[in-house]
Amino acid sequence: MDEKSMRWEDGFIAVDWGTTNRRAYLIDKSGKCTDEFEDHKGVLSVAAGGFPDAVEEIRQRLADKPLLLAGMVGSNRGWKEAPYVPCPAGLDELARALVWVSEREAIVPGLSFLKNDRADVMRGEEVQLLGAVASGSLDPDGLVCHPGTHNKWATLLKGKISEFRTVMTGELFSLLKDHSILSDLLQGKVEANDIFKDAARYSIFNESLPAELFGVRARVLLGQAKKEDAASYASGLLIGADVRVGLSYPTGANITVIGRPKLTRLYAAAITEAQRTVVELGGKQSFLAGIHEIAKRI
Amino acid sequence: MDEKSMRWEDGFIAVDWGTTNRRAYLIDKSGKCTDEFEDHKGVLSVAAGGFPDAVEEIRQRLADKPLLLAGMVGSNRGWKEAPYVPCPAGLDELARALVWVSEREAIVPGLSFLKNDRADVMRGEEVQLLGAVASGSLDPDGLVCHPGTHNKWATLLKGKISEFRTVMTGELFSLLKDHSILSDLLQGKVEANDIFKDAARYSIFNESLPAELFGVRARVLLGQAKKEDAASYASGLLIGADVRVGLSYPTGANITVIGRPKLTRLYAAAITEAQRTVVELGGKQSFLAGIHEIAKRI
Repeated sequence: MDEKSMRWEDGFIAVDWGTTNRRAYLIDKSGKCTDEFEDHKGVLSVAAGGFPDAVEEIRQRLADKPLLLAGMVGSNRGWKEAPYVPCPAGLDELARALVWVSEREAIVPGLSFLKNDRADVMRGEEVQLLGAVASGSLDPDGLVCHPGTHNKWATLLKGKISEFRTVMTGELFSLLKDHSILSDLLQGKVEANDIFKDAARYSIFNESLPAELFGVRARVLLGQAKKEDAASYASGLLIGADVRVGLSYPTGANITVIGRPKLTRLYAAAITEAQRTVVELGGKQSFLAGIHEIAKRI
Repeated sequence: MDEKSMRWEDGFIAVDWGTTNRRAYLIDKSGKCTDEFEDHKGVLSVAAGGFPDAVEEIRQRLADKPLLLAGMVGSNRGWKEAPYVPCPAGLDELARALVWVSEREAIVPGLSFLKNDRADVMRGEEVQLLGAVASGSLDPDGLVCHPGTHNKWATLLKGKISEFRTVMTGELFSLLKDHSILSDLLQGKVEANDIFKDAARYSIFNESLPAELFGVRARVLLGQAKKEDAASYASGLLIGADVRVGLSYPTGANITVIGRPKLTRLYAAAITEAQRTVVELGGKQSFLAGIHEIAKRI
């Protein structure tokens, strides 16, 4: 055991640093999270050359410890680019490909997937997915999705991520809500109600999403649907089409959904409409389990 | 023949008044267009109560003639709402349902379609589609599409529009280009090149558009595609998915595409990838043929 790893064993700070948010956790010797904070200083809000100060601020708020960073902080818009590790990849492959800024700061790389004409990338979700496997919450040969701005469907094989696919569901919903002709109809609350479930089931069993979306407006104009139901209806159509993509992968008994409860609840409701069993897991616990496993490998 | 129709037979002004543009044509006794203009005074740019002035301006620029108006000017954001006429509908049904503002201004209604859970509406395209039939350019039992912000696929039966479906292709492309994570990749020119055709063919024969879109970015990040090809590639994916919807309708020998040449060319290229024969028609000539037929029925 060299000096570097000895220092990491005294505890460290784990950072899940995304495009618009950062979440920092102080991890003690035993692997327990003893302090944490979240703010909106995502990668896009840090000016060029601003990362050393942004990192120093994290240490001042939590402790003067080594940092293990994951997410978009390792992208070409982040602190230092950490090249994608190709699938199949597990915790060992991630740990071996850590990119060191100094010997007190390491960045976890993202994953890439290439097959025939398909190309895909992820950054940040891999720590949560592999953490869920390591903590025994996720079948090491299972199918999992991680909803967010860009939902990721991933298949696991012997505990490694073997294949994955990104669906732009969250971003499409935001674009439609903020900028489209459906905007005034989509300001309401999205709920996993019957309207949502019916729309999800329709999209799971029928394709043609870009044709169905205009129907959100036409149904209200023609008195076939209530304006206040439109957000749940549109969300159901989008998430249903997303689940349809996920169901093209082979699955075991359960499909696992990892992320923020507000989103995992919607995906769980849609997946249930496809007659599949769902397990919901919290993103934070999965991240902490994964980042701790990587730290142990340093 | 009453006074009203006699005045219309002396010539009139036809206006295709959309959300963001208006196109006005002076039509003489013989049905020929003798003057015209187009500007950006679409319905959304006319303030509440501003339509009488906006119409007066048209008369000042062209002639003091009766006006026959079509498009979003008849929506609830327009001058006076013209309730949708349910399908099946042809020129006779449109002419019978004209909404009169005064006896010198009539608004052509849009069409609605309701079947089981599907609801759809159009305003403006119906004049072009039925005009193309009346002028002999479009099979009275054919399949036609009208690309634009919201592409319309319509089936004709004995010269009437029997069924139609809106696909939000143009708006989705604009949303992605102006506001999404793909934005910087989509600023290039869209061309009906091999990149476009390959993407269109992929989408015609495979579903999962919302999953393919993120690939536009991932392919560039992983060196599988050139940044300058991304706009054509993304457009091909979107238009291909749109054509996939259209091909779910029965067709005769040809599929007709009506609209602006820039767009009909892209749709024609995509439809050709589906091994179907395409006829492209100009939107302006089709509109003039249709609006003249409606005027003759006043």
